[in-house]
Amino acid sequence: MNIAVAQSGGPTCAINASLAGVVRQAFKEEKIEKVFGSRNGIEGIICDNLVLLNDVMKNDGDFELLIRTPSSALGSCRYKLPDYRTDDAPYLKIEECLKKHSIDVFFYIGGNDSMDTVAKLDEYFSKKGSDVRFIGIPKTIDNDLVETDHTPGFGSAAKYVLTTTNEIIRDTSVYDLKSVMIIEIMGRQAGWLAASTVALRANGINKPQLIYLPEGDFKVESFIEDVKHELSKENVVIIAVSEGIELDDDTAQVTSRPDGFGHKNLGGIGKQLENIVKDRIGCKVRSVELNVLQRCASHFASRTDLEEAEEVGAQAVKQALSGASGVMITIERINDKPYKVDYKAVEAKKVANNEKPFCKEWLNEKKNNVLDDAIGYFLPLIEGEVTMITENGIPLHFEI
Amino acid sequence: MNIAVAQSGGPTCAINASLAGVVRQAFKEEKIEKVFGSRNGIEGIICDNLVLLNDVMKNDGDFELLIRTPSSALGSCRYKLPDYRTDDAPYLKIEECLKKHSIDVFFYIGGNDSMDTVAKLDEYFSKKGSDVRFIGIPKTIDNDLVETDHTPGFGSAAKYVLTTTNEIIRDTSVYDLKSVMIIEIMGRQAGWLAASTVALRANGINKPQLIYLPEGDFKVESFIEDVKHELSKENVVIIAVSEGIELDDDTAQVTSRPDGFGHKNLGGIGKQLENIVKDRIGCKVRSVELNVLQRCASHFASRTDLEEAEEVGAQAVKQALSGASGVMITIERINDKPYKVDYKAVEAKKVANNEKPFCKEWLNEKKNNVLDDAIGYFLPLIEGEVTMITENGIPLHFEI
Repeated sequence: MNIAVAQSGGPTCAINASLAGVVRQAFKEEKIEKVFGSRNGIEGIICDNLVLLNDVMKNDGDFELLIRTPSSALGSCRYKLPDYRTDDAPYLKIEECLKKHSIDVFFYIGGNDSMDTVAKLDEYFSKKGSDVRFIGIPKTIDNDLVETDHTPGFGSAAKYVLTTTNEIIRDTSVYDLKSVMIIEIMGRQAGWLAASTVALRANGINKPQLIYLPEGDFKVESFIEDVKHELSKENVVIIAVSEGIELDDDTAQVTSRPDGFGHKNLGGIGKQLENIVKDRIGCKVRSVELNVLQRCASHFASRTDLEEAEEVGAQAVKQALSGASGVMITIERINDKPYKVDYKAVEAKKVANNEKPFCKEWLNEKKNNVLDDAIGYFLPLIEGEVTMITENGIPLHFEI
Repeated sequence: MNIAVAQSGGPTCAINASLAGVVRQAFKEEKIEKVFGSRNGIEGIICDNLVLLNDVMKNDGDFELLIRTPSSALGSCRYKLPDYRTDDAPYLKIEECLKKHSIDVFFYIGGNDSMDTVAKLDEYFSKKGSDVRFIGIPKTIDNDLVETDHTPGFGSAAKYVLTTTNEIIRDTSVYDLKSVMIIEIMGRQAGWLAASTVALRANGINKPQLIYLPEGDFKVESFIEDVKHELSKENVVIIAVSEGIELDDDTAQVTSRPDGFGHKNLGGIGKQLENIVKDRIGCKVRSVELNVLQRCASHFASRTDLEEAEEVGAQAVKQALSGASGVMITIERINDKPYKVDYKAVEAKKVANNEKPFCKEWLNEKKNNVLDDAIGYFLPLIEGEVTMITENGIPLHFEI
């Protein structure tokens, strides 16, 4: 039995740990012979651009380095598979490639768009009476997949956001004057990552004082009142804001262009709020966009996250060998403290093209902050560090 | 004998290590009794806002945490001391405060503006026949102080910039298409920090392919040709650019406002270059501004840098006890490999208001890259890591 694995969507710090999990588990299974990596997601299958990972992953050192490597070692894509009823051309190419290399299982590590691909492939091949199995492995820093407690990649991103926010708080607090710092955090529709900054309170840090999520109801006038109110209490006001919030003031709207999936290419809300504070309040104000750093900063990843990411990869192999197809591995939380999870599987089509918003009950009434109740959810996910493997003081990465 | 110490200018990851160095060494010296911290730089002396550090720094654990804390634990200021011949009001207040607390030595950790303060205070108090000594301790992420091989704070900033740039390279390389990533790095007049990205070559990484410094001769048309040329060779083009480069095209100039010292408040060059690439080349392009993160990201500091920062603090105390005044501690490099330095002192007025540009002989002929010759200079400064002390997965900081 041969298998193939691919990575899709935006990079995370943990997606290579899931790849390592699949390959390591596959190497342990007697039934599995060849493990192919598909370059640039499903495109590697469509174009027969595969790499034999049995030749690449030679020892534990290779796995340890791959686990610490951010972004997708096999490359990624944003390819949207069409409905096979209207266009089966890519399906025929996929069939050809899988047949050529005798691939019996295809593992796809990605977000909800990737689960859409898994569900479509499973449906197409099932209808054709094929035995090929398709297994989805979750990843996304946005934590917005349904049916799973959280997603691999989120914990490391949250740990980076929290650590960096805490450092920015120190940086902003040095001068004896009123100042506002706006931190723009990734999250188009779901504000989980910006919301995670609430966990600083577990360490006695009462900032950010304001947290705005796409799940809130952002109004420019309320924002100005919020900031003025916080400035009346303290010199330094720290604001965490999801990139995806929308200004109600039309003149200040974000210029955005949709990508292949219809997502808007957002960014710049921090700068816009900075300008609003400058114009309407007039105090010292600065904004920082955490940008791609929050999804690729593996140098301070969460050990819990990387371990879980590897485990979902291993679980995917076990599910495939037990005959499952068209499913995505999920993480079920048994307990917060002590932290305990279980791994299950759910139909990929239930996850496909869905988004899980931040829990409404964890937002405060004014929707400008997150309640303490959420802290226990976030804390276990950022627990633990991973020692980097460096050369010349710079962390090494694994190349495939 | 009592002493006082203060911190000034922009935050770094190492400025608290120098504070720790002063205090730890002072605690060892029998002659020294009280160690005062002055809040918000020299303003704490002017306004008699002091904290007795003997009561604050209680054990080695406190020092270890202070060393790992970014930004200025005592606060900072951008106060420019006037010439005492035209306005001696602040000098009289300083005299009063020093006398009140029987302070015999004042240590000022800062950049060239702080050395201006040290030189002025030394001159004023010398002329008055006072015995009070003033010692400068260098810090700046910009590495632009003259008379010293490098400055504490720079190594950690460079390590962060290098590590992050390497992660961004991975992030940018996932899709199979032409793309340009522009990384905006701090440095107004001196491009040391952006130049440090050349050190990735020591690990076999041939990116960034283009490095633009204020010491270069930036021309928009040459920039476009450079980028096109690199895109013709490779899919992914990474560009490191100092915030301080000036566009020759007047219509695209940076809007800037000078601060109290006449420095321009720069930023945004990355975004401007992104727009130029978008308009003139039309490929996928993104820019990342490392912003304050590069000066406050203590979670991946350079051990060499923190150790040297602590040592310059200790050396300052030794210099003061040997009778020196009006001097700044310097680091002299004896050897690159094995790395060896010596600590000396130089007149603070030689450092005041001067800036050391990046070495012209390390720039390539086209001034769009840094030569390999510079790598040996940077490497020792980023060597070694410091294990963070965490609670709930988040690095702890020390509060004074």
